[in-house]
Amino acid sequence: MSRIIHDVTLTLSPEVPAWPGQQAPKLFRLRSMSDGGANNISQLDTFVHFGTHVDAPLHFVDGARPIDQMPLETLIGPCVVVSFPDVDAISREDLEAAGIPKATERLIIQTRNCQLFDDHSQGFDKNFVALTPDAANWIVERGISLVGIDYFSIERYEEPGAATHVALLGAEVAVVEGLDLRGIEPGNYELICMPLKLKDCDGAPARVALIEN
Amino acid sequence: MSRIIHDVTLTLSPEVPAWPGQQAPKLFRLRSMSDGGANNISQLDTFVHFGTHVDAPLHFVDGARPIDQMPLETLIGPCVVVSFPDVDAISREDLEAAGIPKATERLIIQTRNCQLFDDHSQGFDKNFVALTPDAANWIVERGISLVGIDYFSIERYEEPGAATHVALLGAEVAVVEGLDLRGIEPGNYELICMPLKLKDCDGAPARVALIEN
Repeated sequence: MSRIIHDVTLTLSPEVPAWPGQQAPKLFRLRSMSDGGANNISQLDTFVHFGTHVDAPLHFVDGARPIDQMPLETLIGPCVVVSFPDVDAISREDLEAAGIPKATERLIIQTRNCQLFDDHSQGFDKNFVALTPDAANWIVERGISLVGIDYFSIERYEEPGAATHVALLGAEVAVVEGLDLRGIEPGNYELICMPLKLKDCDGAPARVALIEN
Repeated sequence: MSRIIHDVTLTLSPEVPAWPGQQAPKLFRLRSMSDGGANNISQLDTFVHFGTHVDAPLHFVDGARPIDQMPLETLIGPCVVVSFPDVDAISREDLEAAGIPKATERLIIQTRNCQLFDDHSQGFDKNFVALTPDAANWIVERGISLVGIDYFSIERYEEPGAATHVALLGAEVAVVEGLDLRGIEPGNYELICMPLKLKDCDGAPARVALIEN
């Protein structure tokens, strides 16, 4: 098998911008060999929507499916990567015009957001590109089961009523956020999206890869 | 493609036994819709070797490779699951006699440990089955690049000098611990092992699946 694995996960560290108002995550040593410890052991303290992560329906729909009950059959499988390098928000019309095949089950959206990951010192950028609520409705109408994007939310900052999240998560569409799509060419891949299996939880940090066959 | 995906990840919750002496992990709501919040957001605080996880060489070898630099090419690919239901410790001789194919790159070891996951209320069991140091040497000599097991350590509790870990991690063998192998039949699978990409870290919790083709 000659295949290429693209890791599309942001490297997690306290330098990665946290969502405004959330406490910055911590990653630190509990024990170090350099201090005489028998081994090195670290601790991670984070809100679960940090970095590359998956939203469960429970994130915006009370009583809905938690992350540990999202089927891996949805999170693993063929996907299509489309690129919108020049838009400020992705509309229904943008998606309609992008030539996304009818049979698409998983859609990964690349935007100019990617470039923000070149330098975390600039902090969280509220002007990231995301889906309008009507674009979310298009995703749902198309029967797409998973949608991913290359900044920390699928929805524009402070969208009224969180209408994009509510449309997607209300329809049980898996939402993958914070993908590092720098250098990824649009096209067909096998997606492997593996969130931590956190019991009854609204989301989880994830390791995500695109396999080029 | 008709394939079956087996999730071999323990569901993470504070009920899962932590390593003796480690602070028990926490998973709790930062914000809840039932309390009037706009959405549900949770927080995870854990040492990184909790539940189903991967050890990086850095865990026992100072200056060695951290988890974010372990290649996905090692963590994803064909694997062999072997079962040792009746042994108290897995020796070189046990591995030698198990008929493990010479070309095996990734080895997943099922033991009676599995049954411990039926009831977390019993707490951490120090009598779990693991590899002797000489079994670890066999793994290294065979050129196996990844080894996994169904309790929280590849090594017996308080093995002198952590010789099993040191042998494996010193040879850059990826070590996967805390796999939930209940109900898994021995045989050939495609392994998908996806630890969080934690910067410069000694290990990470992971989501792991076995694909049956």
